[in-house]
Amino acid sequence: MVTWKNLDTLASYQELEKVEKVNLAEVMSGENGAERVKNYSIPMGAGLVYNYAAKKVDDNVLAALAKLAEEAQLTEKFEALYNGEVVNTGEKRLVLHHMCRGQLGEAVNADGVDKRTFYTGEQTKIAEFAKKVHSGEIANAAGEKFTTVVQIGIGGSDLGPRAIYLALENWAKKNDTLKMEAKFISNVDPDDAAAVLNSIDVAHSLFVLVSKSGTTLETLTNESFVKDALKNAGLDASKHMVAVTSETSPLAKSADYLAAFFMDDYIGGRFSSSSAVGGAVLSLAFGPEVFAQFLDGAAEADALAKNTELTKNPAMLDALIGVYERNVLGHLCTAVLPYSQALSRFPAHLQQLDMESNGKSVNRFGEPVNYVTGPVIFGEPGTNGQHSFYQLLHQGTDIVPLQFIGFKNNQCGMDVDIQGSTSQQKLCANVVAQIVAFACGKDDENLNKKFDGGRPSSIIIGDQLTPASMGALLAHFENKIMFQGFTWNVNSFDQEGVQLGKVLAKRVLAHETDGALKVYSDLLNI
Amino acid sequence: MVTWKNLDTLASYQELEKVEKVNLAEVMSGENGAERVKNYSIPMGAGLVYNYAAKKVDDNVLAALAKLAEEAQLTEKFEALYNGEVVNTGEKRLVLHHMCRGQLGEAVNADGVDKRTFYTGEQTKIAEFAKKVHSGEIANAAGEKFTTVVQIGIGGSDLGPRAIYLALENWAKKNDTLKMEAKFISNVDPDDAAAVLNSIDVAHSLFVLVSKSGTTLETLTNESFVKDALKNAGLDASKHMVAVTSETSPLAKSADYLAAFFMDDYIGGRFSSSSAVGGAVLSLAFGPEVFAQFLDGAAEADALAKNTELTKNPAMLDALIGVYERNVLGHLCTAVLPYSQALSRFPAHLQQLDMESNGKSVNRFGEPVNYVTGPVIFGEPGTNGQHSFYQLLHQGTDIVPLQFIGFKNNQCGMDVDIQGSTSQQKLCANVVAQIVAFACGKDDENLNKKFDGGRPSSIIIGDQLTPASMGALLAHFENKIMFQGFTWNVNSFDQEGVQLGKVLAKRVLAHETDGALKVYSDLLNI
Repeated sequence: MVTWKNLDTLASYQELEKVEKVNLAEVMSGENGAERVKNYSIPMGAGLVYNYAAKKVDDNVLAALAKLAEEAQLTEKFEALYNGEVVNTGEKRLVLHHMCRGQLGEAVNADGVDKRTFYTGEQTKIAEFAKKVHSGEIANAAGEKFTTVVQIGIGGSDLGPRAIYLALENWAKKNDTLKMEAKFISNVDPDDAAAVLNSIDVAHSLFVLVSKSGTTLETLTNESFVKDALKNAGLDASKHMVAVTSETSPLAKSADYLAAFFMDDYIGGRFSSSSAVGGAVLSLAFGPEVFAQFLDGAAEADALAKNTELTKNPAMLDALIGVYERNVLGHLCTAVLPYSQALSRFPAHLQQLDMESNGKSVNRFGEPVNYVTGPVIFGEPGTNGQHSFYQLLHQGTDIVPLQFIGFKNNQCGMDVDIQGSTSQQKLCANVVAQIVAFACGKDDENLNKKFDGGRPSSIIIGDQLTPASMGALLAHFENKIMFQGFTWNVNSFDQEGVQLGKVLAKRVLAHETDGALKVYSDLLNI
Repeated sequence: MVTWKNLDTLASYQELEKVEKVNLAEVMSGENGAERVKNYSIPMGAGLVYNYAAKKVDDNVLAALAKLAEEAQLTEKFEALYNGEVVNTGEKRLVLHHMCRGQLGEAVNADGVDKRTFYTGEQTKIAEFAKKVHSGEIANAAGEKFTTVVQIGIGGSDLGPRAIYLALENWAKKNDTLKMEAKFISNVDPDDAAAVLNSIDVAHSLFVLVSKSGTTLETLTNESFVKDALKNAGLDASKHMVAVTSETSPLAKSADYLAAFFMDDYIGGRFSSSSAVGGAVLSLAFGPEVFAQFLDGAAEADALAKNTELTKNPAMLDALIGVYERNVLGHLCTAVLPYSQALSRFPAHLQQLDMESNGKSVNRFGEPVNYVTGPVIFGEPGTNGQHSFYQLLHQGTDIVPLQFIGFKNNQCGMDVDIQGSTSQQKLCANVVAQIVAFACGKDDENLNKKFDGGRPSSIIIGDQLTPASMGALLAHFENKIMFQGFTWNVNSFDQEGVQLGKVLAKRVLAHETDGALKVYSDLLNI
């Protein structure tokens, strides 16, 4: 039985605060630095490695973090979660997204069914549907194949699937497995849907409507928008749309859709990329075999997250280093910096995953906490970021911990050799150089050209960004965020902070406003 | 004559710290709140309005900020800048980007020419070139019109022009002024160039190579990449490329380009969108008349930045409220939240503009400062962000000041009426609701559903996102950041923090490494 305690009540946390701080510039210099880079490295699944040599940790800090992991019962809490305990206490729900990619523990029955069977059953339904679409057995009214898939969803139904699609689009083209081009409509801004509709041939497009509740304002509005466009093109909308929703939603058994695929209340939106929410669009775009490889990579990372030994559990280690940076060292943001253009939207997905999960001020019992919780997350791909915001990261007045990601090989297989090196080598040389520049700095008499160093980073290294490594990467961060939520004793699986805005927006649209809300509404001609 | 002093040496700053803090939830409630929204509002040029009612200011704070503006000589420093003083002291350069859009003060001669004449001369050259491309007078080897323009550049040569192109693409389509589709290659990751080249017809594409020095690693590498692709397609690269560079760069008089357009050392990369750096690609994409409208909008905002009265100078006011939030109230980041899908990459541009300009720890004399300077900037369009990171903004343990942007009308002119309102109304209702939710919060017995409020925001409101309003928006933020740099007494126009990484990357590529750098290089197979 696990017990849920606030971080600042744990003896091991108080010990952690007292451990001598690491002088990063010093420990990363010379042979000692070389040894750290060799030793502070663990496999994360699917060929990825998590290297934390340039973090402000040493064996003493790691020992203290291991004690914290133990006292906070992190792996036991994960075990409780995947064995079906009601870990999302606020909404009184199980948390089962791991079960989309494997059975980590006991069978979990809920709503009268075995949940692993339910999730794999939906995957099979999606795979069969996708194959029929690809073969032309399911086609448009003229009997022609669908060439484009358009996801209509927002938040968790958009950012993860979109980031993963972009991450694998060029890989799929190169490997002849891009079956359909994917597009995404999310924003209630009518220009979002209009621009996507203007860029596609609706007659050959299949729309995937994703809303768990079947009531999401933006998504239903955009569905109407698309239906109008289909109707105006003389098409039967119900022959161009599928739904991804819960079995109890109004969309579940509607004749408005070619097919419906199901998720349930035990998978939160931001954790739903490996459920039907990501499964439908990604299986249609890349083929179900590719989506299966993605799930396998995620399952590998999940299995590692069960390790009770801290330095064999990359997600738990990453989580606790993050807590140490946030609560003990006092750093406030984290930047995610993938040296891979394909991961251009992955930081935006992690921003949601992390900030929506752990951006909380009360613990899981609804009591205020006396310490900071989830950080602000932001990031852009390198080397682009180097020519943008890295100035502040190197010489600004605040220290921002960094998460680099790099791959030895590119996806497209096209490259150019200039001045004795390929673009891929230049890309990798830059990420390596940045780690050392941030950690070690450089002295200069002119303080404007001086770099203090002492700016911590870790790097995730892989051979290539593939479906499997993408799966492992995603699962790593999902699990990291989960472990951080356990450590901070917050419920990472609800999001009450999004409710008030929705309520007030409805009031504005109903013209039931006064005071500031009324004047603002007038200013915007609502 | 202006004098440059550190913020903490100013008497007015010490007074500002003592002014009674504003209880935002209280002042934004009831009739008082309505009055604030009506009164705390100023024109920003091109029909835009800056509304700061939901900031933690009142007439006392504003009076203290006005004193600070005066003691810090902010408008005098701006005057010195546009009259050609060497404000970029580190690099010993003038700062003249305003002169691309107007003559704010005296004529400035440098390098033996009148700089306003030089910048408008380049605009004229670009306009004539663009018209010839659009008419087909300049065409490919087969005599066919170019249909696509591809910018090759990074950082300042990428983010601004890209954000502006995306901001106006749908407007231009709707107004029949989209002459050529634009694409952008920036990252040294070879998959970036490969993906763009795979998506276009190179035979009908014109490439704009942008590098002030003519030596930017990423840009020259990508140029080679593109030249290979043109050669492989049997095309003469020199008939498909133009250069935007300085007159002294190796690219300036090369036979490798159809034409060359010039900028100079007095316009920093991140401030170069209104120079030839943005001018070439945007004039080719939209036509020179549209680019001229953009410049006119920027000029309107620049003129307002000359006002010595704080509440008639939106950029200066925005700047000082930001300094107040950062240095007195202790808030650390700022989120930019445009309720406009067209502005999807504008936050990334502002991230560069702000963090690269003011992410500094030394003052303009190279002495360490004893206060925090530029904040971390991040953001995504609403309503998408509402379903992502707003949880932390509403209920996280840190307060993040917010910059909303909203427009009364969409760009595409397509909309749908659902449940009594259009998508555009829903979009606007959401931004209005968020301002009030953040400011006023909501009490609840269940603390998990409680909103403390007191979270400050401002909103920029416009009729529609057009070339002119885009210009005013950009110039507003450029000027805001300039005023903040003046206030913090940092040099906002250099970026020494990007140098160390470049040096170390060269060393890695030359295999001249040891210690940690060597082991990292091995891990990434360099």
